[in-house]
Amino acid sequence: MTLFNQERMVYVGNEKGLKAGNGFHYYNPDQVVNGKKMSEWLKFSVAYWHTMDQRLVDPFGDGTAQRPWDNIEDPMEQALAKVDYLFEFLDKMNVEYFAFHDRDLAPEGNTLRETNQNLDIVVDKIVAKMQETGKKVLWNTSSLFTNPRFVAGGATAPFADIFAYSAAQIKHSLEIAKRVNSESYVFWGGREGYESLLNTDMKLEQDHIAKFFRLAKDYANEIGYTGQFLLEPKPKEPTSHQYDTDAATTIAFLKTYGLEKDFKLNLEGNHAYLAGHTYEHEVRVARDAGLLGSLDANMGDKLIGWDIDEFPNDIYEATLVMYEMLKNGGLPTGGLNFDSKPRRQSFDMQDLFFAHAAGMDTYAAGLLVANKLIEDRVFEDVLDDRYSSFKTGIGADFEAGKVTFKDFENYIIDKPQSELIAATKSGHLEQLKSTLNNYIYTVLGR
Amino acid sequence: MTLFNQERMVYVGNEKGLKAGNGFHYYNPDQVVNGKKMSEWLKFSVAYWHTMDQRLVDPFGDGTAQRPWDNIEDPMEQALAKVDYLFEFLDKMNVEYFAFHDRDLAPEGNTLRETNQNLDIVVDKIVAKMQETGKKVLWNTSSLFTNPRFVAGGATAPFADIFAYSAAQIKHSLEIAKRVNSESYVFWGGREGYESLLNTDMKLEQDHIAKFFRLAKDYANEIGYTGQFLLEPKPKEPTSHQYDTDAATTIAFLKTYGLEKDFKLNLEGNHAYLAGHTYEHEVRVARDAGLLGSLDANMGDKLIGWDIDEFPNDIYEATLVMYEMLKNGGLPTGGLNFDSKPRRQSFDMQDLFFAHAAGMDTYAAGLLVANKLIEDRVFEDVLDDRYSSFKTGIGADFEAGKVTFKDFENYIIDKPQSELIAATKSGHLEQLKSTLNNYIYTVLGR
Amino acid sequence: MTLFNQERMVYVGNEKGLKAGNGFHYYNPDQVVNGKKMSEWLKFSVAYWHTMDQRLVDPFGDGTAQRPWDNIEDPMEQALAKVDYLFEFLDKMNVEYFAFHDRDLAPEGNTLRETNQNLDIVVDKIVAKMQETGKKVLWNTSSLFTNPRFVAGGATAPFADIFAYSAAQIKHSLEIAKRVNSESYVFWGGREGYESLLNTDMKLEQDHIAKFFRLAKDYANEIGYTGQFLLEPKPKEPTSHQYDTDAATTIAFLKTYGLEKDFKLNLEGNHAYLAGHTYEHEVRVARDAGLLGSLDANMGDKLIGWDIDEFPNDIYEATLVMYEMLKNGGLPTGGLNFDSKPRRQSFDMQDLFFAHAAGMDTYAAGLLVANKLIEDRVFEDVLDDRYSSFKTGIGADFEAGKVTFKDFENYIIDKPQSELIAATKSGHLEQLKSTLNNYIYTVLGR
Amino acid sequence: MTLFNQERMVYVGNEKGLKAGNGFHYYNPDQVVNGKKMSEWLKFSVAYWHTMDQRLVDPFGDGTAQRPWDNIEDPMEQALAKVDYLFEFLDKMNVEYFAFHDRDLAPEGNTLRETNQNLDIVVDKIVAKMQETGKKVLWNTSSLFTNPRFVAGGATAPFADIFAYSAAQIKHSLEIAKRVNSESYVFWGGREGYESLLNTDMKLEQDHIAKFFRLAKDYANEIGYTGQFLLEPKPKEPTSHQYDTDAATTIAFLKTYGLEKDFKLNLEGNHAYLAGHTYEHEVRVARDAGLLGSLDANMGDKLIGWDIDEFPNDIYEATLVMYEMLKNGGLPTGGLNFDSKPRRQSFDMQDLFFAHAAGMDTYAAGLLVANKLIEDRVFEDVLDDRYSSFKTGIGADFEAGKVTFKDFENYIIDKPQSELIAATKSGHLEQLKSTLNNYIYTVLGR
Repeated sequence: MTLFNQERMVYVGNEKGLKAGNGFHYYNPDQVVNGKKMSEWLKFSVAYWHTMDQRLVDPFGDGTAQRPWDNIEDPMEQALAKVDYLFEFLDKMNVEYFAFHDRDLAPEGNTLRETNQNLDIVVDKIVAKMQETGKKVLWNTSSLFTNPRFVAGGATAPFADIFAYSAAQIKHSLEIAKRVNSESYVFWGGREGYESLLNTDMKLEQDHIAKFFRLAKDYANEIGYTGQFLLEPKPKEPTSHQYDTDAATTIAFLKTYGLEKDFKLNLEGNHAYLAGHTYEHEVRVARDAGLLGSLDANMGDKLIGWDIDEFPNDIYEATLVMYEMLKNGGLPTGGLNFDSKPRRQSFDMQDLFFAHAAGMDTYAAGLLVANKLIEDRVFEDVLDDRYSSFKTGIGADFEAGKVTFKDFENYIIDKPQSELIAATKSGHLEQLKSTLNNYIYTVLGR
Repeated sequence: MTLFNQERMVYVGNEKGLKAGNGFHYYNPDQVVNGKKMSEWLKFSVAYWHTMDQRLVDPFGDGTAQRPWDNIEDPMEQALAKVDYLFEFLDKMNVEYFAFHDRDLAPEGNTLRETNQNLDIVVDKIVAKMQETGKKVLWNTSSLFTNPRFVAGGATAPFADIFAYSAAQIKHSLEIAKRVNSESYVFWGGREGYESLLNTDMKLEQDHIAKFFRLAKDYANEIGYTGQFLLEPKPKEPTSHQYDTDAATTIAFLKTYGLEKDFKLNLEGNHAYLAGHTYEHEVRVARDAGLLGSLDANMGDKLIGWDIDEFPNDIYEATLVMYEMLKNGGLPTGGLNFDSKPRRQSFDMQDLFFAHAAGMDTYAAGLLVANKLIEDRVFEDVLDDRYSSFKTGIGADFEAGKVTFKDFENYIIDKPQSELIAATKSGHLEQLKSTLNNYIYTVLGR
Repeated sequence: MTLFNQERMVYVGNEKGLKAGNGFHYYNPDQVVNGKKMSEWLKFSVAYWHTMDQRLVDPFGDGTAQRPWDNIEDPMEQALAKVDYLFEFLDKMNVEYFAFHDRDLAPEGNTLRETNQNLDIVVDKIVAKMQETGKKVLWNTSSLFTNPRFVAGGATAPFADIFAYSAAQIKHSLEIAKRVNSESYVFWGGREGYESLLNTDMKLEQDHIAKFFRLAKDYANEIGYTGQFLLEPKPKEPTSHQYDTDAATTIAFLKTYGLEKDFKLNLEGNHAYLAGHTYEHEVRVARDAGLLGSLDANMGDKLIGWDIDEFPNDIYEATLVMYEMLKNGGLPTGGLNFDSKPRRQSFDMQDLFFAHAAGMDTYAAGLLVANKLIEDRVFEDVLDDRYSSFKTGIGADFEAGKVTFKDFENYIIDKPQSELIAATKSGHLEQLKSTLNNYIYTVLGR
Repeated sequence: MTLFNQERMVYVGNEKGLKAGNGFHYYNPDQVVNGKKMSEWLKFSVAYWHTMDQRLVDPFGDGTAQRPWDNIEDPMEQALAKVDYLFEFLDKMNVEYFAFHDRDLAPEGNTLRETNQNLDIVVDKIVAKMQETGKKVLWNTSSLFTNPRFVAGGATAPFADIFAYSAAQIKHSLEIAKRVNSESYVFWGGREGYESLLNTDMKLEQDHIAKFFRLAKDYANEIGYTGQFLLEPKPKEPTSHQYDTDAATTIAFLKTYGLEKDFKLNLEGNHAYLAGHTYEHEVRVARDAGLLGSLDANMGDKLIGWDIDEFPNDIYEATLVMYEMLKNGGLPTGGLNFDSKPRRQSFDMQDLFFAHAAGMDTYAAGLLVANKLIEDRVFEDVLDDRYSSFKTGIGADFEAGKVTFKDFENYIIDKPQSELIAATKSGHLEQLKSTLNNYIYTVLGR
């Protein structure tokens, strides 16, 4: 059966054709990179909400997307049809994973019971298709932000009934996570934040959500769902202040409430910029804390102050994020989920194919460059040299815990300024960035 | 002796004169507010680096400040003269506290020993003047960022000798803290961050500074200095990424390294904006964590992307920050330090007087409005009503730890959408902000 | 007939009641300010799109608004019902004007002809209600951005048919402008910009829209519509680059295409911030150019990177914008249109009343403060003194056009640095901002 | 004579060596690109203020630069020595041009006469070295912002004496421009803006500077200096609002005062970001207006809110800016001036060499990619297709000026929505960005 009028995307490698055609130039799933197949390093995932559901609306305009299922009017019928399209899309794109919110899959009913019933019908079909095709769920999650009942949050709602509803909804989502064997379960607190501090008890709300997370973990344990729990940081949008602002803020929350054993982080490029950070910074923060869970593969526009979820096409960012991923030894329970949508003017169905291919090629290219940088110890040698004074003498003694402030004073108090300046070394950053450019051109040149 | 050609600033209250003259309209130190004198709530402090040292330079221009000590050429002579000016300034402004970096007070020598000698001469004079006048040190700190030896940081420097120097310098600063009886000791990591992640081992650098802080605390204990240690968050400036980005990031650091018992936070308005937050948000984060230490009283320009350290004049911000301060029961070991400088065009000596007066009046006015808001339970009543559903029924059971996800599901699964929507309440924010305006006008009207 | 379950808003002035009730504390329409009634200075206008149509959606959530017309299912029936609600709202709020896009009033049909028919039915009713009540249209406009056909713009669309459609749609809107006697006609280029420069011929698109504007003016002349044409600047949203970025950019466009006689500007606070400016700056730029047309009364959040259209509540901004308005001698063909919506959590119908009242009171308060500042010549005296050196000597000669570069050289070449520095004067900004605060408290205190 | 302990930079091209060594990988001055030598397209220029004068200070730290002339204590002796270093640097870098402010070259005296005398001594030496070496001045300019006398501006100063001084200073700078045969003369209004609108008469200040520019042009004509006058836009820094905010704002100013025949624009990457634009946007705006003069080759950090003047290393930006330059037919009187400085940690002399080489290679690489994109008509074909509907039918009639709003209405009024949607085409941006990546990798691969 062929639903999409679009050929399968295949690896064409060095073949002629600079303008993107029907193939990958860099993503070659079976190519071995540092001992593992590219497809094992790059566990790409299609985001149901963007690829299947996104109408390409914006705050000033109705949706422009043109999709083959647009004309199916019955909501459940459309929901079920999209499952078929998804699996054909995964197949033709050669993508192994997908990710979804509960509300992406099926329309809500008037009560949670009715909503769950709608949802289960679609999940049944998904499970059947998964068995048939071998495709997998990278992670699932739950929307506690779209429906007006969540106007003031879900697990931080000031209204006990909404809190109760949120708990019950997550309960069902965890049951689905178990059914579809999600590698991780993600919490993005879309409304967990404040509109204004003037009418918000921030501490009470954070106490509530922390308890909520413990109850969620209890329930996952109870039903034997063992996927990794992930928190996804994002600042400012949609609430004025989102509690999980960035990686460090989320780590502060986890440690404050003793949740750091139960959660890791799901990080996203565009969210990083909105918090004032580079994507690689956020990934490094999580890696250093041992909390790097999974990646949302998208990018934003640093000159634009909101989430645009663009498909990744920046080789610098892809290289540096893949560098972090490689240094982390991969992402055991995570992958690269395309939390990305075509631009509003890219409304053709074909754009979905090309946009995913562009994103996959960008990260595959980044992986190749990062791997070569590591093989050649480009950054590693720089660091070894830069911190070498902590490997001998007073530096080594300090590392060994043998030195007090008095010892340091005795050691340094009579060193003249000229010697102190001589103890510093240039960071040679311009040279290093030039080297990075040369690696990009050389590794990817064809 | 009168050094400044400027009258003493006195409380003139409701007196005629809308244009700022030689007096305070709101700051009345002996006026009792909620059981304490205004001067006890508002422990104002003059910042040595701005008020005594700041030349009003910027990256595109030389200093414009015109100060009576400009013509004293010998650096030590000038340093000692400025001590007299400081104490006259404190007296004429009716300010009880001041704050300083080691490097503000005296010029450096060629070695740390020589530098310490210069410094001690000025500190001797300061101690004598303190005894004479009763003025106090709110906090002192140490500059590990100005001298080129700190090009890549102090306690996170990649160079062991610079790390050693930093330790020795802080050792001396702690000794001074003890001598001048500083209520707190502040660490602002001016260079503790990275220029680029490409040549930085962030984790190693954070391990180093955490150990550095433990050694600092050990030394403080050893010499019996009992002032509160404070960390001051700031993002981006001067390094591309400052480790202590904002309150939450700093809390994450403290908890990661087990330092949260030994440190509190010193927060600043302008730093908050640069991190994408309001000042009151940062103060709330610290208060909720039990880590609110002290406040830097300044403001920035939210349309400008760097630290401008303007004297505070925004009644909204002052009111909301004073609200947090009052809810915290005051700042036991902290105060309101004017980390503020006149605009570059406000180069007259007189501007220093007027600028401090404007800042003091702004915070005094804010205190009066905040206190009245609390007396009338304006926000408290809003919150009580807003979260009331957690005081009975399922909400109360949840607070008591009696409810599981299954219980929540049973409770909510058949509630129709209309009832769920009815469980939410408007935040009425426009009305609340209008009320805030009315409080400002009414409390401050004269 | 009473549709809304809400009392009329009346002037309660100094009456007790700090928490906003059913009245205005500052907006007193008949109070005379500088020779004109407050209602003449403050031509407030209700924005149909926000007040009647806005569902309080955001990119992450469905609408939360609860409106009495929600249950009217037939679109035309609902459209007609909302006209009644509008006029009752205007009456109860004591607002004289309203503003609308064509698409706010009635649903689209399958062709422009059908769409115009729907629209005309509603306009007929509006015209009748206007005659009955005396309410007026401040301005109308046309949406060339919501429907997917405008995916790449209207008057800058790369597609001739869409350009043609845009022209035909504006033609009808100008006919409506004539029927309802709009004081101005506004063009906001919601999609007139680019998504990416890579696939955009910016010059061609700007040539097109300039010709479009000339054709529009021709048609207005042809039908005898004499209202003022206004362009509304906004940067970045929704396209990555909006052609009418800010006041200065729009002036460059008008002058480049010789359109500056036919257009003035409609300025908005939130748009100003997004372009990196204060609202008062944008108003000053337009005033200085003789192009100040009308004002959109809203505000944003300078820490948030998109348009939030909050009802105005900042007394500083209101004061400074009203200062510009007074110095402009009012807004002959313009007013203060509330391009503002309640926060998403302020979903009650009552919030619409309170939000407008808060906005009206804020601008009325700003008018009172600005007027007193002008009466007392607070800023005028500062400026007279500051620029006084251009009133005598070499300065006056320069103003009279009598001086060349050589004359200046002869005049200054031997003046020593000390005299040059003495020629400069402090800007005393801290004192001036303190004075502004004192005016606010004193004028508004009660 | 060899002053620098550093080899000459030569073209090493495809030679092994990914880490930057002593050579250019892409900058090959004699290589012919689209009919001209690379050195003719890329008129690189060294900026005296950064390369010779910059101490790598920042607002929180003293300079870190280590330069061979640091120990020359006499200011005039040092100034003259640096001339030798400059010319050796130009020679070793194979750069043909340099650019300078008057104040970069020599120290000020107590009067303008003395200052001019100091300056002339250095200019004499520069002229001699130029004759000896054939090196040229791309442009010179004058600092009306560093000295405290310019605290409130130069040509917009509120003080007639400072205005007079500015005029006299520019007079001398224009004489120097004639002597050194500068291809252009640049005005960057470092202090021409306001600190606050509260104490600024913006219109008067802009009237003044416009007259100032006319007097400057008169004087240039008088002395027969025929170089191109350039204005350099920049927002926000150092004043809160800089009058020449961005390209469009500067065009508005030029057109308002009838100066658009006498000036073109000098554009800079980092300034573009600070104004919220991409660099290529600013260049496009100027090109479309026929006002593209010259380019400052640097870049910034879009996450940082001030000017960092980093050496360019972003291949995307270099490619798109070179695309604009090629479409402009080059820069007849302009070039690529490195208004760039090494990072503060890159304090070695060697870093100056490597940083310039990195920048030159980046722009040479960008030129190669842009040229290939043009040769293959990548963007041109996209545009031809995208706007093709304006080449026939109603579109062509419109272009020919034959169509009125009524004609458009007749043409479109009965077209159904489906046909209108069919008239739009996808922008295929993801595919286009992927193509751009492929061009970069393929053209630069080695």
